[in-house]
Amino acid sequence: MSEKAQVAVIMGSKSDFDTVKGALGVFDDFQIPYTVRVMSAHRTPDAAAEFAEKAEAEGIKVIICAAGMAAHLGGVIAAKTTLPVIGIPIPSEPFKGVDALLAMVQMPPGIPVGVVTAGKAGGKNSALYAASILALSDAKIAAKLKEFRAAQTAMVEAADAELQIELQK
Amino acid sequence: MSEKAQVAVIMGSKSDFDTVKGALGVFDDFQIPYTVRVMSAHRTPDAAAEFAEKAEAEGIKVIICAAGMAAHLGGVIAAKTTLPVIGIPIPSEPFKGVDALLAMVQMPPGIPVGVVTAGKAGGKNSALYAASILALSDAKIAAKLKEFRAAQTAMVEAADAELQIELQK
Amino acid sequence: MSEKAQVAVIMGSKSDFDTVKGALGVFDDFQIPYTVRVMSAHRTPDAAAEFAEKAEAEGIKVIICAAGMAAHLGGVIAAKTTLPVIGIPIPSEPFKGVDALLAMVQMPPGIPVGVVTAGKAGGKNSALYAASILALSDAKIAAKLKEFRAAQTAMVEAADAELQIELQK
Amino acid sequence: MSEKAQVAVIMGSKSDFDTVKGALGVFDDFQIPYTVRVMSAHRTPDAAAEFAEKAEAEGIKVIICAAGMAAHLGGVIAAKTTLPVIGIPIPSEPFKGVDALLAMVQMPPGIPVGVVTAGKAGGKNSALYAASILALSDAKIAAKLKEFRAAQTAMVEAADAELQIELQK
Amino acid sequence: MSEKAQVAVIMGSKSDFDTVKGALGVFDDFQIPYTVRVMSAHRTPDAAAEFAEKAEAEGIKVIICAAGMAAHLGGVIAAKTTLPVIGIPIPSEPFKGVDALLAMVQMPPGIPVGVVTAGKAGGKNSALYAASILALSDAKIAAKLKEFRAAQTAMVEAADAELQIELQK
Amino acid sequence: MSEKAQVAVIMGSKSDFDTVKGALGVFDDFQIPYTVRVMSAHRTPDAAAEFAEKAEAEGIKVIICAAGMAAHLGGVIAAKTTLPVIGIPIPSEPFKGVDALLAMVQMPPGIPVGVVTAGKAGGKNSALYAASILALSDAKIAAKLKEFRAAQTAMVEAADAELQIELQK
Amino acid sequence: MSEKAQVAVIMGSKSDFDTVKGALGVFDDFQIPYTVRVMSAHRTPDAAAEFAEKAEAEGIKVIICAAGMAAHLGGVIAAKTTLPVIGIPIPSEPFKGVDALLAMVQMPPGIPVGVVTAGKAGGKNSALYAASILALSDAKIAAKLKEFRAAQTAMVEAADAELQIELQK
Amino acid sequence: MSEKAQVAVIMGSKSDFDTVKGALGVFDDFQIPYTVRVMSAHRTPDAAAEFAEKAEAEGIKVIICAAGMAAHLGGVIAAKTTLPVIGIPIPSEPFKGVDALLAMVQMPPGIPVGVVTAGKAGGKNSALYAASILALSDAKIAAKLKEFRAAQTAMVEAADAELQIELQK
Repeated sequence: MSEKAQVAVIMGSKSDFDTVKGALGVFDDFQIPYTVRVMSAHRTPDAAAEFAEKAEAEGIKVIICAAGMAAHLGGVIAAKTTLPVIGIPIPSEPFKGVDALLAMVQMPPGIPVGVVTAGKAGGKNSALYAASILALSDAKIAAKLKEFRAAQTAMVEAADAELQIELQK
Repeated sequence: MSEKAQVAVIMGSKSDFDTVKGALGVFDDFQIPYTVRVMSAHRTPDAAAEFAEKAEAEGIKVIICAAGMAAHLGGVIAAKTTLPVIGIPIPSEPFKGVDALLAMVQMPPGIPVGVVTAGKAGGKNSALYAASILALSDAKIAAKLKEFRAAQTAMVEAADAELQIELQK
Repeated sequence: MSEKAQVAVIMGSKSDFDTVKGALGVFDDFQIPYTVRVMSAHRTPDAAAEFAEKAEAEGIKVIICAAGMAAHLGGVIAAKTTLPVIGIPIPSEPFKGVDALLAMVQMPPGIPVGVVTAGKAGGKNSALYAASILALSDAKIAAKLKEFRAAQTAMVEAADAELQIELQK
Repeated sequence: MSEKAQVAVIMGSKSDFDTVKGALGVFDDFQIPYTVRVMSAHRTPDAAAEFAEKAEAEGIKVIICAAGMAAHLGGVIAAKTTLPVIGIPIPSEPFKGVDALLAMVQMPPGIPVGVVTAGKAGGKNSALYAASILALSDAKIAAKLKEFRAAQTAMVEAADAELQIELQK
Repeated sequence: MSEKAQVAVIMGSKSDFDTVKGALGVFDDFQIPYTVRVMSAHRTPDAAAEFAEKAEAEGIKVIICAAGMAAHLGGVIAAKTTLPVIGIPIPSEPFKGVDALLAMVQMPPGIPVGVVTAGKAGGKNSALYAASILALSDAKIAAKLKEFRAAQTAMVEAADAELQIELQK
Repeated sequence: MSEKAQVAVIMGSKSDFDTVKGALGVFDDFQIPYTVRVMSAHRTPDAAAEFAEKAEAEGIKVIICAAGMAAHLGGVIAAKTTLPVIGIPIPSEPFKGVDALLAMVQMPPGIPVGVVTAGKAGGKNSALYAASILALSDAKIAAKLKEFRAAQTAMVEAADAELQIELQK
Repeated sequence: MSEKAQVAVIMGSKSDFDTVKGALGVFDDFQIPYTVRVMSAHRTPDAAAEFAEKAEAEGIKVIICAAGMAAHLGGVIAAKTTLPVIGIPIPSEPFKGVDALLAMVQMPPGIPVGVVTAGKAGGKNSALYAASILALSDAKIAAKLKEFRAAQTAMVEAADAELQIELQK
Repeated sequence: MSEKAQVAVIMGSKSDFDTVKGALGVFDDFQIPYTVRVMSAHRTPDAAAEFAEKAEAEGIKVIICAAGMAAHLGGVIAAKTTLPVIGIPIPSEPFKGVDALLAMVQMPPGIPVGVVTAGKAGGKNSALYAASILALSDAKIAAKLKEFRAAQTAMVEAADAELQIELQK
């Protein structure tokens, strides 16, 4: 684990990296140090449990879990830490992520997971959500987040302006 | 744990006993010793992992997991044992067990859970399925299972006969 | 708004109070000051937007939104603040909360909402999730959360112990 | 905004133009002046609210909103105008527009959105629906709509006639 | 048909009156004259077709169709008129209105139906949507609609105010 | 209409021919005369109603309706004839035929449609189902149907035999 | 089996009688002789197979199968007869008949089942569908079916007339 | 049937071989003798019933059934044997395996099928599940299964290690 990582991004399989990449891009932009791990609720349960148990002591503040199918990763990690856990449901064949969404969000009372959009949109959103949590006690991240929002608004406005020009031709 | 238990029935919460009861009735009829435990994938993860890890050594041959919502119990237990794990999805509000079914059955490749009917029918079916596994090396259980099937067939035939009489009145 | 509220709980209609109550119980236990508001994304859009815009300045750190049907409340609030927003999908007739879950969780990239369990379980889980966020910079809440987890684990263990006694009779 | 536009077509992102194009074709055929805008319920909430608030005064009579995922655009616009709002649910991965349909149609009592077919068929249908509304007070549009219907009927009849010839060969 | 009716409300069966009642209340409040009919796409197809064909000539401006199950009523009516048709999906056992929603909203390109919320909320919303259409050429209805919106906003604000008082006790 | 047609196959649009082709192949094999028509519940409602009304007098015995989306065709035809109507739900984007299946099968009490498998499998099955109906009073068709079944069984057995050889290599 | 039965109604369990009753009422009205049987695809597979195999020789012309859950009864019967088989999906907890509908209608190519409305409406519709098949070679049933339709239309018209009177009060 | 086969893998159609291949790979690795058969619940019901009836006597211990659509194969086999039956739901167009999953798992009380993951993941998981059953009375298979698990864990750990190196570049 990188010494100063504030966020841990865990994926159930290396093939989930495509979804997770969107999150890492945000963390790079926001200069939020992170660690990325491949750990499985089912194939490496001990590693996952141990990671979750030690995460807080290692300085991790938020844990993002990306998993598909019967996506237990978020719940298994949340069961062993009191840090906020963010879940990204990863779509897969044949049930297109409905399985992962329900397996992540329907946590029984007592152990919550905060679930964001399924798939790649969720990759990006998980990082922005983590940033919004970290921003509560980090003014630099708070400022970055507000800049990001302003830039995003400007991009939609630009797309609208560009469309007006195209349609007038 | 009862010393000679061959089957362990685990439920995520004591409120799942109603579903599990159907299984216990079958085990009583078939004289298959069992243990019943309340253990939660999320609220007692260590107890669940430890139980799964030791089950084989304690003589358990089949583990039945009944859970609702984001029903991780089956997967969490299966991750820590190579014994066959049977899952019963327990319906709950608001998603009526679709969440539990998908969270149980859609296990990623490598760690299977064998899932039976959702709800009370699944309580009974989980025990019959466990019996069919135990019957492979226990002639007494095999005989009981065949008797059960014959009795069940006879009951449907009796219902049919009774209906014929009722309709002729 | 209560002067020192750290969490705002917004519901789309007063009839959602039943779901929200579970959150308030947790906040009372954890001594986390909160404010509760009835505001609707559609019926009081200006009030909702204004609230979201000012929340950070008023000292709010986390906003919980409980809504049913086409549950836009979370998204509408998140669009106007960079504070973390937690969504509770409230089930209603006839679609049992599938509508609220999808309308909350499927936020487009750029504006995340962290969604917890649908219905009453989500009421409690939203508060525990908010507590896990606040705990990052509040040792007292962090301690409360760990106590809560320990008590919760103990309760499941007690239920298991009690069951063993009942079954031995 | 084009000065005389009677219909405003709003899409949440420029990538929705493919769906919206079907509507514009109908408006061109029917000679109904329109404006097309890129505005997002979440990324440009103020622009969207302001647009909705002023639309009636600017002469807009019907607003069409095309959006995908947690498609709040229709509801957010409807909340700020009493003009009829038509929603087109745009399918996207992974939930294929079920999310957008439910997030659009399940508006709580008090603020309706009239939702048409999901996807490209909805693009065309939204414009025909807008035309049916405008036709109530515009005889030229009413005549165009009846012509369109007659031509459409003739096309199906022609397809049937052509099939009869093909099958007799 | 009442001579001056501007809106026709059609239901597939008299048992749908409960849903439709919400619409009639709005029309009474807004002083919009209406007619209510029981007509079935399948049991009285000729009456339904004839009604739809003559509606425009009789002065009807908007047709509301409430139906459940394979809810063809909206489509069947829309096929025979160019007036705007509003559909209310009525939930029924066992599929809870998913059938009615899809059977109403997924109209093929060329013949749109504008679908509102399923069930009783849709009863009210269908009338408000009809009012928003009529308001385009009727200043009195336009004024009523704005009053309704203001009153509705005030009611949510009052509920919020009342809650603040209750919570301070 | 071919003079001696015993079965009419109606499709809502010529693009449905791909599904319908499977049915025609069966009718050709079984030497059952048929007619194929393009008629739409919504775009040619009068033609469809008239066809249904006259079908029995023209010697048609079974009507097959293939339609997608809000598939009203089966219901609209069934409403105007007492001949048995068979529905084939045609899948389309984005809802993959769930819409067509529910819109066809959930007919209200009084006017049934007999629905077969969605998509191309349904094309073939609709014809076999029609044949099973015609076979009740046509010994030649009855014999063809039994031959077909025997051949089909033989094909599966042949596939099994072939597999055994392949696996032994 | 009653000697002259033309229709066999099979249910998977006696608890399905409530659904089946609606069919029997129609047969009594139409004076169509029938037999009713309790036979299970899983609990009495031999009886079911034997029944299906002999049904044609015994004079049965149509077989109605009512079953819930993984409703294999229709398919199992259809596999052993070339008579037309009608399926009624019976709703049950927790999946409300979605399981039964899909397990009945999605028959692979080669062995069709004609499926009607789920639940009690399907009970009635299955009998009307059987009657429409028998009517092809039985003028008395054909006449009864036309009478039934006329009476049904009259009932809807009467409900409409009654409503007009009620609303004018 | 291979003389010493302990597991029978049955598929409804030869096109299901792709799914089944994953199971065979596991059996080859584990040196578990198997037989593979193409048999259909509907197209070769007698062969399927006979196979199931004789399987136990032929030394088969576990039967794996792979089928799609209205996947009755598992239930039909289970109805004729007391051996444990494992079901693999095979996804197909248009319902993506939801039909096969429900048609397999929702077995009525009395005749269970243990269902694993839908699709190719299920191919592999069915074999691992069969192995876990056989391992109860075969120490060699038990050892193989533990080796497999250890190797699988090692592979995830290796993927994690590899990722750490890639990310540090």
